[in-house]
Amino acid sequence: MKDLEFASPKEVRNSFKEEVIVKPTAGMARGYAQANLIVLPEELAFEFMLFAYRNPKPCPLLDVLEAGQFEPFMSTPGADIRTDLPKYRIYENGKVKEEVTNIKEYWRDDLVSFLLGCSFTFEDALLKADIPIRHIEENKNVPMFKTNIETNEAGRFSGPLVVTMRPLESSLISKAVQISGEYEEVHGAPVHIGNPEEIGISDINNPDFGDAVKVKENEIPVFWACGVTPQAAIMRSKLPFVITHSPGYMFITDIKNEDLSNY
Amino acid sequence: MKDLEFASPKEVRNSFKEEVIVKPTAGMARGYAQANLIVLPEELAFEFMLFAYRNPKPCPLLDVLEAGQFEPFMSTPGADIRTDLPKYRIYENGKVKEEVTNIKEYWRDDLVSFLLGCSFTFEDALLKADIPIRHIEENKNVPMFKTNIETNEAGRFSGPLVVTMRPLESSLISKAVQISGEYEEVHGAPVHIGNPEEIGISDINNPDFGDAVKVKENEIPVFWACGVTPQAAIMRSKLPFVITHSPGYMFITDIKNEDLSNY
Repeated sequence: MKDLEFASPKEVRNSFKEEVIVKPTAGMARGYAQANLIVLPEELAFEFMLFAYRNPKPCPLLDVLEAGQFEPFMSTPGADIRTDLPKYRIYENGKVKEEVTNIKEYWRDDLVSFLLGCSFTFEDALLKADIPIRHIEENKNVPMFKTNIETNEAGRFSGPLVVTMRPLESSLISKAVQISGEYEEVHGAPVHIGNPEEIGISDINNPDFGDAVKVKENEIPVFWACGVTPQAAIMRSKLPFVITHSPGYMFITDIKNEDLSNY
Repeated sequence: MKDLEFASPKEVRNSFKEEVIVKPTAGMARGYAQANLIVLPEELAFEFMLFAYRNPKPCPLLDVLEAGQFEPFMSTPGADIRTDLPKYRIYENGKVKEEVTNIKEYWRDDLVSFLLGCSFTFEDALLKADIPIRHIEENKNVPMFKTNIETNEAGRFSGPLVVTMRPLESSLISKAVQISGEYEEVHGAPVHIGNPEEIGISDINNPDFGDAVKVKENEIPVFWACGVTPQAAIMRSKLPFVITHSPGYMFITDIKNEDLSNY
């Protein structure tokens, strides 16, 4: 992964477009915002946008395309959301039908695409402040968990809040809260710090999405809202057809991280 | 109007529901946020929400209801947007067909309602800082103008930015900018200060909506983004059927002004 750490967003997207690399994107194209992708039929678009509006912490909108459009011309002109992510999920009736490396054969003129902020965005700022990120150290996907916290429902969308987890030493937690808190458009400050059971997570070593990472004796798990939350709603609602990114395999935008901070 | 200045939002809404008062709402229920209303068929709801998302300055979302709902249960539980505003506009094919004091006979199960922030909200803070508001002094509706600034289009929605105008003495402008700037969810800081012609306003005494107010020799016109902007887009796009509030005749929410400030 190291070879893409300082690559430009376009270089990284091109390596996905050519399908030469299929990897989780944490740590890639440092300094540029990463995004979750949700693609659904226009008939569901208002309800989903309302779901995002009512749940801004897990679902901050970075860009929204009109029906049939696949170039996110406001955030990332020239890109193609059908090919420029490393891995996609095709959901049918709330179940993952398959994972694919492009969605060209699934594309339809009535599909509406949403890009939501991703916490990978503020990881660069955490690293700069000497706060280590375990899943990057271990070259793994970030661990993600469904919680017992319910989102605000909208139309056919309802489901549990999904969170990412990063284990931190006690002395670093305050700094991590303050730094991530400055990035409201990419989930902001943590939603929970400490006891996983309080938010319905029974086994910290068994995430619902992504990989398990080592939590050391002297570390506390810290949880941030996650843009995979819509996928939990898609599963529960058994919607007939939705395309998403594969958790951890994000779209890398041309938006600079600092443009999403409150500084 | 003075008798409603210190009335509760519910009292003011009830006086509109009973249709005993039909007046512009500036200065009423001081301390509570006022809102613009847009009601349109579900088929247009995603495109309109996208228009609002792409134009947050004139179209800050305060609440969005699902198709058929008329109680804004998140912002103002118990209220009824079909009856609780003093005056509504029925648009057909981009033209005002009529103005009515309730929309019960127009209501349909496929209608989606949006509440957008209104600059009347921060007028209370301006008054508290001893910044006089001319249209309140003159007991008139606020003057509103179409400008030559284009909004970002979305689907069938495109049109000019509409602004409100408040004349201020030079010594007060900086304070007014700073105070209103703290209220981002209700249009925030001015979009233009001074020369009206630069934004396409040829006659400051002839507003496109609302009433003309006196601009004194020693005063400068100050312009804020206005939630009537969608009505200009409805006019241009000639949409078949849309309901709005009548400009200046707002919905008064139960949201306290301070909950919309950045303080």
